[in-house]
Amino acid sequence: MKRALYLAKKANWRTSPNPMVGAVIVKNGKIIAEGYHKKAGLPHAEVEAIMKAKEHLNGATLYVTLEPCCHRDKKTPPCTDAIIKSGIKRVVIAMKDPNPKVSGKGIEILKSHGIEVIEGIFEEDARKLNEFYIKYITTKTPFVILKIAMTLDGKIATPSGESKWITSEESRKLVHLMRSRVDAILTAYGTVLKDNPMFTSRIKNGKNPLRVIIDPELKIPLNYHVYNPPPATIAVVHERKLSDDKLKLLNDRGIETIFFSSEKVDLKWLMKELGKREITSLMIEGGSSLNSYALWDGVVDKLMIFVAPKIIGGSNSYPSIGGKFYKNLNEAFEVRDLKIKRISGDIFIEGYLKKG
Amino acid sequence: MKRALYLAKKANWRTSPNPMVGAVIVKNGKIIAEGYHKKAGLPHAEVEAIMKAKEHLNGATLYVTLEPCCHRDKKTPPCTDAIIKSGIKRVVIAMKDPNPKVSGKGIEILKSHGIEVIEGIFEEDARKLNEFYIKYITTKTPFVILKIAMTLDGKIATPSGESKWITSEESRKLVHLMRSRVDAILTAYGTVLKDNPMFTSRIKNGKNPLRVIIDPELKIPLNYHVYNPPPATIAVVHERKLSDDKLKLLNDRGIETIFFSSEKVDLKWLMKELGKREITSLMIEGGSSLNSYALWDGVVDKLMIFVAPKIIGGSNSYPSIGGKFYKNLNEAFEVRDLKIKRISGDIFIEGYLKKG
Repeated sequence: MKRALYLAKKANWRTSPNPMVGAVIVKNGKIIAEGYHKKAGLPHAEVEAIMKAKEHLNGATLYVTLEPCCHRDKKTPPCTDAIIKSGIKRVVIAMKDPNPKVSGKGIEILKSHGIEVIEGIFEEDARKLNEFYIKYITTKTPFVILKIAMTLDGKIATPSGESKWITSEESRKLVHLMRSRVDAILTAYGTVLKDNPMFTSRIKNGKNPLRVIIDPELKIPLNYHVYNPPPATIAVVHERKLSDDKLKLLNDRGIETIFFSSEKVDLKWLMKELGKREITSLMIEGGSSLNSYALWDGVVDKLMIFVAPKIIGGSNSYPSIGGKFYKNLNEAFEVRDLKIKRISGDIFIEGYLKKG
Repeated sequence: MKRALYLAKKANWRTSPNPMVGAVIVKNGKIIAEGYHKKAGLPHAEVEAIMKAKEHLNGATLYVTLEPCCHRDKKTPPCTDAIIKSGIKRVVIAMKDPNPKVSGKGIEILKSHGIEVIEGIFEEDARKLNEFYIKYITTKTPFVILKIAMTLDGKIATPSGESKWITSEESRKLVHLMRSRVDAILTAYGTVLKDNPMFTSRIKNGKNPLRVIIDPELKIPLNYHVYNPPPATIAVVHERKLSDDKLKLLNDRGIETIFFSSEKVDLKWLMKELGKREITSLMIEGGSSLNSYALWDGVVDKLMIFVAPKIIGGSNSYPSIGGKFYKNLNEAFEVRDLKIKRISGDIFIEGYLKKG
C-alpha cells in the first residue's frame, strides 16, 4: 500500500477534479503490475495496472489507495467491472471513496462477486493525500488553504504596506509549489494594487492556478499582471458598482466575471460558485481583511503559516488576521493537528481549522 | 564535564549574583569527589569538591564548568589557592570566567604553578547555563527575557483586554518556573490594572522574583497584590508626577521606589539601576507597548514566545509587539538560534535577539 500511495503521489496534484490514486497488483508475493491515475480523462489507477499486467491475474491481490469506482458517468468505465473481469481475488483499499456515488458501493459490488475486500490500510495517509478531493466531492466546494507569511510578532506588512519579503526564499518556493497544486488562488484588489503580483507558480513544470480576484469596482488597472491572462483570471465584481464599459473591457481580455450583489462578497457563496466550476482546491493569498473574512465566513480548511524570525512591531502594522471582528478567548478559532517544520530560517506551521 | 554541568544545574538558578558552577575530581579514572555552588555566600564548587575528597588529590584531575576564581573580594577565598594546595595536577575548564576580575587570570595562576589547564570542553553548554551571569558580569545590567503568550495570529489580548488564558496550563507552568529562575520581573501599570496579578512563582519550592512595576503616577490601587509584599516590589515612579503623600504610602508598605524624570522610562537606564541592585536577570511580562519599548530601547536578550493554536483576529486586538514605532523589513529586529518545542497544545519558541 505504501508503494500504491507513492504511485498516487506521482500525479503531483494534477488529477483535479479527480482524486490521486495509485494501484499495485501482487501475485505469489511479487508485484506484477502497477499504475496511477495521471489526469482527469486518463485511465484510473486500477485499470492502468490491470492493463499493464503481462500475466493472468487469477488469484492476484490488488492494493489501491481509494475504493474503486462503480459509476458510469465518467468517460472511463467503472473500475469494479475491470477488477471483476480480471480474476483478481482480493482487493486491499486504503479508504472508502467519499463520493456519494461510490461510498461503499464499489466495495459491495466487489464482495458480491466473491472478491475479498480489506479496508482502512494506511487510511490516514490516503485521506491526507486526497484532502482536496474529499472536501470537494462531499461538499461541492473547494478545499481552502489560508496562507500567511508573517513576522514572529504576527505582522504581514508594515503600516505602509511593505511585505516584500518577510519570509525566506525557501518558504516562498514552497508557496509556489502549493500554487502548482491548487486549482485556484483567491486574493483581493488591495493586495494586487500593492505589488502587482502575478500569482503564478514559478517552479519547474509548475502548473499555474486560476486567479480569482475580488475587485468589486475594478480598481486594479487593466495592465496589471492578473488582468493579462494566461493564466486565467476570474474577477469577482459587484453587480451595481461595475459599469458596462468596464465589464466589456474585462470580457474582451477573456476574463470571466462572477457577480455579487451584497455589500461584501459572501465567501461561502463564492466557494459554491467556484465549486460549480470544478475548482476543488483554493489557496487564499490576501491581506489582513480577506484573511479575517475567510475565517468569519467559515470557509478555511487548512492554515499554512510561514513565520520569519523577525519582529517589526507597531500597533499600525498589518496583523496576520485583521478585520473589524474579533473572537473572545473562549470562542477563538481553534487550529488542530499542528505540524511544525523549519524551512531555512523560517518556522512553517500547518494546521486544520476546527469546525463547529 | 557532563557530570559537572549536571551538578552545576542542581543549584537551580539560586546562585545569583554568582554563576552556577559544578566540579568533579577524578583520580585514576574514578570520580573521587564532586561539588557545586549552591548559593552566594556558600563554598564555590571547586572548594566543595576538594573538601569532600577523602583521599590525597596528588595527580588528580579537576573538571569544572567555569574558570576558578582568583580574586579576594568575596567572602570565600580564591579557588585557585585551594586547587594549588590540593595537589591537583590537571584542571579541565568548560569556559573562561567572563568576570573582568578573573577572565584568564585564574588559568594563568594555575599554569604558573605547573598545573595543566585544558579549556573549552562543553563550552557552549556552560555558556548557555550561565547566560544570566555572563551578561551581568560583563555589562552590570541584567540578562533580559521578553516573555510573550500569544495566539497563532500574534495577539496577546482582545480589544477589551481579555488575555486569560491564551496559552495552556503547561505553558503557564513554564512561565512560573522561569519566574523562579530570574531575579526580577518587569511589568507596567496597564497589565497590573487589568487582572491584579501576583507575579509570583506558583510552583513547588519556587523562589519568587522581585517585582519591578512601572507605575509613574501610582495608578495601581495599593490593595493590589503587587503593592502588598512579600515578595518585594520596586515601583518605578515619575519624579514630578508622584505626590509626596503617595510616595509615603508606598514607602510605608516597604516598597522601594526608583525615580525617573524623562517623559517615559528609559529602559536601558532602568536596567543599569537594577544592575546596581545586583539584579542579574529579569523577565518582562508586559503588554503590547512595554514589549515594544523593551525592543526599541535595546534591552532584550532573549525571547520566549508561547503560541497557542488559536486565532482571535481583529485589527484592534492587542498585538504581541505594539507601540507607535515599527521597523521596515530590511531593518527588522532579527531573532537567532531559534528553538521550537511543543508544550501540550502550544508552540514554544525561544530565541536570542541579534545585536547591532
